Amino acid sequence: MSDGTALETPRAFAAVILAAGKGTRMKSARHKVLHDIAGKPMLAHLMDEMKRLAPAETVVVLGDGREQVEPLVGGHGGTVAVQGEQLGTGHAALMAKEKLQGFEGDILVCFGDVPMVRAETAAAMLERLNAGDAPATVVLGFRPPDALAYGRIIADDAGTIAKMVEHKDASAEERAVDLCNSGLIATRGADLFALLEKVGNDNAQGEYYLPDIVMVALGEGRASAVIEAEPWEVDGINSRAELAAVERRWQDRRRAEAMAEGVTLVDPATVWFSHDTIIGSDVAIEPHVRFGPGVEIGNDVMIHAFSHIEGATVHEGATIGPFARLRPGAVMEKGSKVGNFVEMKKAVLGEGAKANHLTYLGDATVGANANIGAGTITCNYDGFFKYQTVIGAGAFIGSNSALVAPVVIGQGAIVGAGSVVTSDVEADALALARGDQSAKPGWAKRFREAMTKKKAGK
Amino acid sequence: MSDGTALETPRAFAAVILAAGKGTRMKSARHKVLHDIAGKPMLAHLMDEMKRLAPAETVVVLGDGREQVEPLVGGHGGTVAVQGEQLGTGHAALMAKEKLQGFEGDILVCFGDVPMVRAETAAAMLERLNAGDAPATVVLGFRPPDALAYGRIIADDAGTIAKMVEHKDASAEERAVDLCNSGLIATRGADLFALLEKVGNDNAQGEYYLPDIVMVALGEGRASAVIEAEPWEVDGINSRAELAAVERRWQDRRRAEAMAEGVTLVDPATVWFSHDTIIGSDVAIEPHVRFGPGVEIGNDVMIHAFSHIEGATVHEGATIGPFARLRPGAVMEKGSKVGNFVEMKKAVLGEGAKANHLTYLGDATVGANANIGAGTITCNYDGFFKYQTVIGAGAFIGSNSALVAPVVIGQGAIVGAGSVVTSDVEADALALARGDQSAKPGWAKRFREAMTKKKAGK
Amino acid sequence: MSDGTALETPRAFAAVILAAGKGTRMKSARHKVLHDIAGKPMLAHLMDEMKRLAPAETVVVLGDGREQVEPLVGGHGGTVAVQGEQLGTGHAALMAKEKLQGFEGDILVCFGDVPMVRAETAAAMLERLNAGDAPATVVLGFRPPDALAYGRIIADDAGTIAKMVEHKDASAEERAVDLCNSGLIATRGADLFALLEKVGNDNAQGEYYLPDIVMVALGEGRASAVIEAEPWEVDGINSRAELAAVERRWQDRRRAEAMAEGVTLVDPATVWFSHDTIIGSDVAIEPHVRFGPGVEIGNDVMIHAFSHIEGATVHEGATIGPFARLRPGAVMEKGSKVGNFVEMKKAVLGEGAKANHLTYLGDATVGANANIGAGTITCNYDGFFKYQTVIGAGAFIGSNSALVAPVVIGQGAIVGAGSVVTSDVEADALALARGDQSAKPGWAKRFREAMTKKKAGK
Repeated sequence: MSDGTALETPRAFAAVILAAGKGTRMKSARHKVLHDIAGKPMLAHLMDEMKRLAPAETVVVLGDGREQVEPLVGGHGGTVAVQGEQLGTGHAALMAKEKLQGFEGDILVCFGDVPMVRAETAAAMLERLNAGDAPATVVLGFRPPDALAYGRIIADDAGTIAKMVEHKDASAEERAVDLCNSGLIATRGADLFALLEKVGNDNAQGEYYLPDIVMVALGEGRASAVIEAEPWEVDGINSRAELAAVERRWQDRRRAEAMAEGVTLVDPATVWFSHDTIIGSDVAIEPHVRFGPGVEIGNDVMIHAFSHIEGATVHEGATIGPFARLRPGAVMEKGSKVGNFVEMKKAVLGEGAKANHLTYLGDATVGANANIGAGTITCNYDGFFKYQTVIGAGAFIGSNSALVAPVVIGQGAIVGAGSVVTSDVEADALALARGDQSAKPGWAKRFREAMTKKKAGK
Repeated sequence: MSDGTALETPRAFAAVILAAGKGTRMKSARHKVLHDIAGKPMLAHLMDEMKRLAPAETVVVLGDGREQVEPLVGGHGGTVAVQGEQLGTGHAALMAKEKLQGFEGDILVCFGDVPMVRAETAAAMLERLNAGDAPATVVLGFRPPDALAYGRIIADDAGTIAKMVEHKDASAEERAVDLCNSGLIATRGADLFALLEKVGNDNAQGEYYLPDIVMVALGEGRASAVIEAEPWEVDGINSRAELAAVERRWQDRRRAEAMAEGVTLVDPATVWFSHDTIIGSDVAIEPHVRFGPGVEIGNDVMIHAFSHIEGATVHEGATIGPFARLRPGAVMEKGSKVGNFVEMKKAVLGEGAKANHLTYLGDATVGANANIGAGTITCNYDGFFKYQTVIGAGAFIGSNSALVAPVVIGQGAIVGAGSVVTSDVEADALALARGDQSAKPGWAKRFREAMTKKKAGK
Repeated sequence: MSDGTALETPRAFAAVILAAGKGTRMKSARHKVLHDIAGKPMLAHLMDEMKRLAPAETVVVLGDGREQVEPLVGGHGGTVAVQGEQLGTGHAALMAKEKLQGFEGDILVCFGDVPMVRAETAAAMLERLNAGDAPATVVLGFRPPDALAYGRIIADDAGTIAKMVEHKDASAEERAVDLCNSGLIATRGADLFALLEKVGNDNAQGEYYLPDIVMVALGEGRASAVIEAEPWEVDGINSRAELAAVERRWQDRRRAEAMAEGVTLVDPATVWFSHDTIIGSDVAIEPHVRFGPGVEIGNDVMIHAFSHIEGATVHEGATIGPFARLRPGAVMEKGSKVGNFVEMKKAVLGEGAKANHLTYLGDATVGANANIGAGTITCNYDGFFKYQTVIGAGAFIGSNSALVAPVVIGQGAIVGAGSVVTSDVEADALALARGDQSAKPGWAKRFREAMTKKKAGK
């Protein structure tokens, strides 16, 4: 949903992403930050978004299960620091010190399980850090509908922080403040680790807390500032219920965006987008449609209910579904139609061509205006290799035919219904490959009588 | 959802429907008032509802894109007036003057993009207009959950209006009033255009506002009255998000109505009705069912999840789905069954007949108690014309058969599995039309060995 | 969702379930308490839950339509008492007197249309009844979000009841109390009927109200106590809308439970569980999945969107859907795959075997690693009897084949695409059963020309 445009930062920028938590409440063998939002791991959402700020370094602090996460970090241009013991967020951030030795720019510390923060918000934090009053840190605050047990930020109207206080230590007056601490914090590279090393662990959990650097700096006479994010940007994910809630909010924003851009969603709540879905204008989408990754839909496309679309390119004026399944490599040319109970995979359906019913098109190319009858199957697999079916423009494949690949049906050819085509068919020819019809008069009646007797005898 | 019953009005009645707005925020090549609610254009909803009051005239004021809308207006018995320039709602209403020259009854001005107002509400406005205190106009007010920036109506307990005020001009005390102006207004034909001609455009936009006639009349010593609508009746539609919201509210009311009438909706929010769906009693509908236009469902029908039904007539005790698709012209007789991955189009399934799996029945008639095997296809199309398949009562069509129309399968006949039937089959006969079986012992093993070698060699 | 564990009660326990109401608002030929929640009649939910307390007796009081309900009552170990006339809940409870003659333990009176009360809550009522202060009765209270017209319970902090008051008789101060009366009540067997016989019917409806026993006992100097339930436990069902609302809340709790146990639900609101669904850990479920009764899903199973699953056992690592339908008796072994538009019924798909597209497997056994091609149909029915198809391990069934049961395809055999197999196929053999291919060069072109002319001539 981010538009992916680059943003400027006042100075060189590094991101430290804390992701060493065990994620026990997910009850999953998969590392928490690898769980998907809109079909993309939550950590990838965060790293992609931070890339818009062109970070000089991105250090991801990992703990248990780091071997699962390392490939993603590397693939997104980050480096890994390891937190061996779980001694709190302050301790976790400190683990990035070595990787950022000598880094002179600004550092934003964020969280792998708070993946929806926008680059615009991060940029605003860095701007604030470099404002005239030169705050020691910039804390990201938010005002949730119900402040609950979040830590409170006591700040003046200019956003200068007087106090950060845990909910349990807060006075009634402090609890009445609805500005809460998200945990994200920006500071100068020159300051971060020095401040962190002064943070103590004199608390019930015996942990080192990252936000304590605000009070440490204040103790040294340096004030911090707060800026505010939308609450949804700082939603944390600790359970599958929270994962589903963040997914839902992502989808709701994406749906609103689609409608604002001129897409009709009859029932927005039942259309699920992927992180990279591209939809043209005046596209109409009925209820219950699911987009997997890699889908691009052109203008004026009609998508009927109960369609499942992934890795597909659909051109202008095409019609999909209901009950259609487009798998990766499906290409629908202009004005083509895929109807109910039809599956396409690595297949091109030519301009104006139709496959309206109960069909499997796999590893196939269908020419313009060809008509694929109901129940047609491209037999593309022999148990070892996949083979191509090529159907020429204007060809007519009779219903219930099996096309045994590799096979070519020429332009304008007709395949008779129920044929099993194993050899190429010339252009404009009629191909038949089926048995002859024979009849046994009265047989059905005798059969029924015999069976009725047998059933009664049971 | 309206029951369509006629309502009386005190005097002759004309409707002026303003629909000249550009609808830019819809981002659509289609005119705003042609976008659908429950499968019917929003303007058609409004015109159909007003017809219950038997209007002497219905004038629809159109601007840009009027050529798209004119057929619908004509088709619903209305006439078109044109607003060339967009100079405000007062100016738009004035454009109807010529069409209503000499009309002596009462006029209701409403809006093409406020399509859900009920005839009962319109009738109540006209009743109020003709009450003893003879108000100059009757304004339709509503009390939204959040009054936001709506204009306020300052009225006494009897509904006599002291003042109408735009939100931006309202005092704090006036803003505290939650009675808002919907924009709809009723007045005598003798008054409307005279009042409109006295309305000025001395405001920031330089537009003529329809509600200003209330203050004009008051300036002449004639008070107006307000009556109240339910907020959902006056929801306006300016974007696709608002369109989806109105659709949702329509569906929610329709779902509640269905349940009140004795339909089981396991998950009401996932069942989508069309504007004209008719459902009998003790019908059970699982989640995720979509009705298109023209559906009539009898009593005691079971509709399983993931069914898509349009233009179909389904009689008592039938069973549909899951994953069934009934297209226009599908008729299911009493106790018949259509199962998963089955499509029917212009086809009649006889009493007690079954088509339970993976079947296409198009342009077909199936007799009572016939059994259509899995994977049966009626081959109804040769690329140019459609042909009929007729299957007699009690016939049994073996699985994976192709019936090449035109073709008749006689009563009680049996078609062997996998047959391609191109000639008629006599009653009670067995028809077979398939190849003989042959075997090559050991071939599969040799093939596997060769392919395994080839694959390894790759 | 109840874990089904047994709970102890202080003394012998009997349940009296009132279910004599007509349920007129359901507009159903089916008795109200037989309508389903999560695929199980509401009365069965309540009786199953009460069984956790090992009741000595369960008496269900029925009126009109009792013949519909009696089998369920008997099947759950209950006995039926009859209320001939509808004279109120007090009168209904009195109808159980004969069946509980001489019962010395404690009695809980509950309602067939308030079916979600937990055994834990019932046990807590019985505990309270036997506490030191020996209350005459224990009333189940709740605090709804909006207390509306519920009767209020005026009690002290210890839960000792000073007064029970109907909403219409309550003072403003009493209405401000948000502790409401659910109607459920526990009392000693020795007390219940004696108290009920002292209840009068001096009220507008002329009915005998069960809660009046509280005031009767208080008049005799014996106080009652209240304990509180969650509001959802005491939701009553009088209409299909309320039925849908209770179903929704049941589903929401079940979804939360699934996520807490490590199941990924991408869109929880679109996954519908049955009362007995069992799901392993790290199972991923896409939107729009419906579970019918009798489903057990192992660990690491992937269930794609639009799947409909009932009576199926699915083992570890299997993949289902999208658009899959598993019917009763479907068994998917480890790592097997069922893809789009595939139906299984009384069929076993062996370890690692695949049926990926457009297939019907009924009354079949498929060996390990077999590959079932697209469009394969097991022809299991001849109109009278069902027959078995057995496919050996490693067999490869070519696309669009029909396997006419009873038939055995040997291990490692290959069936050529489009075959109709009517005889057994040896292990490792290739079977072909299809017509030969022939061609008529130029025929299609001539056909097109002739048809184009014909169409134009129309």
